[in-house]
Amino acid sequence: MEEESHKLLLRSIRLEALGDGIFAVAMTILAIELKWPELKDTSVQAFINAFHELSPRLFCYFISFVVLGIMWFGHRVMFEYIGRTNRYFIFLGILFYMMVCLVPLNTRFLAENSLQWGTIFIYGLNLSLCNLTLYAQWVYGIKHKGLLERELPLQVQKEAKFLFLISPVVYLFAIIISIWIPVISLGIFIITPLLYLIPNKLDKYLP
Amino acid sequence: MEEESHKLLLRSIRLEALGDGIFAVAMTILAIELKWPELKDTSVQAFINAFHELSPRLFCYFISFVVLGIMWFGHRVMFEYIGRTNRYFIFLGILFYMMVCLVPLNTRFLAENSLQWGTIFIYGLNLSLCNLTLYAQWVYGIKHKGLLERELPLQVQKEAKFLFLISPVVYLFAIIISIWIPVISLGIFIITPLLYLIPNKLDKYLP
Amino acid sequence: MEEESHKLLLRSIRLEALGDGIFAVAMTILAIELKWPELKDTSVQAFINAFHELSPRLFCYFISFVVLGIMWFGHRVMFEYIGRTNRYFIFLGILFYMMVCLVPLNTRFLAENSLQWGTIFIYGLNLSLCNLTLYAQWVYGIKHKGLLERELPLQVQKEAKFLFLISPVVYLFAIIISIWIPVISLGIFIITPLLYLIPNKLDKYLP
Amino acid sequence: MEEESHKLLLRSIRLEALGDGIFAVAMTILAIELKWPELKDTSVQAFINAFHELSPRLFCYFISFVVLGIMWFGHRVMFEYIGRTNRYFIFLGILFYMMVCLVPLNTRFLAENSLQWGTIFIYGLNLSLCNLTLYAQWVYGIKHKGLLERELPLQVQKEAKFLFLISPVVYLFAIIISIWIPVISLGIFIITPLLYLIPNKLDKYLP
Repeated sequence: MEEESHKLLLRSIRLEALGDGIFAVAMTILAIELKWPELKDTSVQAFINAFHELSPRLFCYFISFVVLGIMWFGHRVMFEYIGRTNRYFIFLGILFYMMVCLVPLNTRFLAENSLQWGTIFIYGLNLSLCNLTLYAQWVYGIKHKGLLERELPLQVQKEAKFLFLISPVVYLFAIIISIWIPVISLGIFIITPLLYLIPNKLDKYLP
Repeated sequence: MEEESHKLLLRSIRLEALGDGIFAVAMTILAIELKWPELKDTSVQAFINAFHELSPRLFCYFISFVVLGIMWFGHRVMFEYIGRTNRYFIFLGILFYMMVCLVPLNTRFLAENSLQWGTIFIYGLNLSLCNLTLYAQWVYGIKHKGLLERELPLQVQKEAKFLFLISPVVYLFAIIISIWIPVISLGIFIITPLLYLIPNKLDKYLP
Repeated sequence: MEEESHKLLLRSIRLEALGDGIFAVAMTILAIELKWPELKDTSVQAFINAFHELSPRLFCYFISFVVLGIMWFGHRVMFEYIGRTNRYFIFLGILFYMMVCLVPLNTRFLAENSLQWGTIFIYGLNLSLCNLTLYAQWVYGIKHKGLLERELPLQVQKEAKFLFLISPVVYLFAIIISIWIPVISLGIFIITPLLYLIPNKLDKYLP
Repeated sequence: MEEESHKLLLRSIRLEALGDGIFAVAMTILAIELKWPELKDTSVQAFINAFHELSPRLFCYFISFVVLGIMWFGHRVMFEYIGRTNRYFIFLGILFYMMVCLVPLNTRFLAENSLQWGTIFIYGLNLSLCNLTLYAQWVYGIKHKGLLERELPLQVQKEAKFLFLISPVVYLFAIIISIWIPVISLGIFIITPLLYLIPNKLDKYLP
């Protein structure tokens, strides 16, 4: 804590509260983009047509909601280890939230042009930047002992690094694939967040 | 707690905060859909016409606001029993919030076509999925002792199951009725959330 | 506390969190309605025209933001006395939030037709219903000792009743006045919330 | 504390929660203004054109997000010193939030007319009013000992005054410059918030 004594150390609780608010709004805003088309008549067919028209957007809504949810989870777990913040950490946090708030915008872009290389590139880039700015917070946090809530075994550091960096690598792969077979890229966007549901070595270091 | 020791156990407070945020935004967004039509002139008649034009939307706003409010209440009571979360519980929570965020969209759809089978079907399906994903959290939570905040008598489990599942059953009934008399289905959507205001056996197990 | 023992008593903190979220969104949404008109050219005149066109909306934004802010303050002070909730109290809270979420909608209606009896009627009615549903929570809360956080001297009860009911009475007056001189009604909407800034007898009963 | 004993003293935590919510919504709403233009075809050129069309808005989004983020940080640090509020402090807080909620609106105005004196004037004025209302809270807070959380050395007061007032002065400078070279003003808007990342004398007075 010595080396940190000249810097501003603030409990992380309010940054977490800001983050919870931003995630809550970003996730809800995803659904604002969704709009049922007008029904032409009262027939079952008109209703099925409307659903068919809405479905690509609904599908992208599901992907992005899960992606943001899992990202919120990663963010939440990070603050089990990091309990204090300083001005640089908060600045990195703001960059992370800045990327998170762009997800609804790029989700709509993806929904409107879901099988094009360009939109998949932007969407994958957005998600990668979310992960990388989150990782930047982590790297900064674990290098400054004053910010840490608890001891951090080397094993945790290795595992966390892997978990933070696997997504950007996979998303890069999805972007490249999309030049040839965009539908596979969409599949990758669905599967990637679910990987974080698999129990990992980090778990046993938490209470 | 033994069986849980290999999994990540996190206090539920931040998931609750995310949920409060999502409910707050979803409930406020319901009102964004409402828009007064332009007044043609300054007469009382023009004003009454405007109100008349707004009223179906206003009516659906009231229904959905109460539905979401009561659902928030159920969610809030659940966390009196469940005090910790793990990655699977959080994933179920994200699915629940995903369904909650669709309510404003389907409320507008209902408001625009309030006496059609299709919109009532979608609205009822949405509310049922909210209840079922909330129930899934509950079932998962009570099966994993590490997540529980307090002892859970068998009586509470039975009563809770009834309270969680009564809504989807009633909504299914509303959907079927809507094929013949849609206005009754609307009535069911109004009355159902109010059932949860009746004191029940769960109450005496809380402090 | 005896009489309450059969009902669900929950700490009020999460209802307050939901309320903070709803007020935050409703207040921010007020500003979404504001939109600068397109500038015709780069002259100072074009800029002044744009400001002139925006100003009625900006003016109504200021009124409503202060009104909601003061209402949030009243809501916040109430929970200094009331520390627990039950299902009925929460239901009254939901009705209150339902009225609060309608304020942005009616603010826009007022901004678009600010000198008409009808819009002033709706705006005043909306604010009155906010106050009355807040008052309903208070009346319910002080009648059920299990919900109270601290002793409530008779003096506080009288003063609080006055503070809760003065607004609806004044708003009723504003609505009636608007039939003849709408601009006075707007003045009343500005001044009323500021009355709550005057220190009152309630203050000395708080820590 | 004597002098304050007749006024209402409330812990600042709920005002901070309201503020976190308002900042979270305002920051997320910045991104709602962003909308990808429709792609004319699937060529790389169409995609680059779309990005080119979006880029001024994206650029203003980045500026405003960082500005709001740093402002949130200042607001957050302030509450390390100020731990209680009264009705006047809360009213100043509401004025501050009122100015914060106008930032998305004026960001869009800036994005649409980024090299005009008028929009830079409005944007700079908005940011200055944010800073000045935040400063008003600080001045009020440190003059009323009942609101303070901890001792406030004279050195802190001087430094804080400098940090609060430097922004409005710089923004005034940006507004004047914009009459001749608007692009420099934009540069000033980018650099100013970053100044607050430099460690300052305030830091050593915090735990």
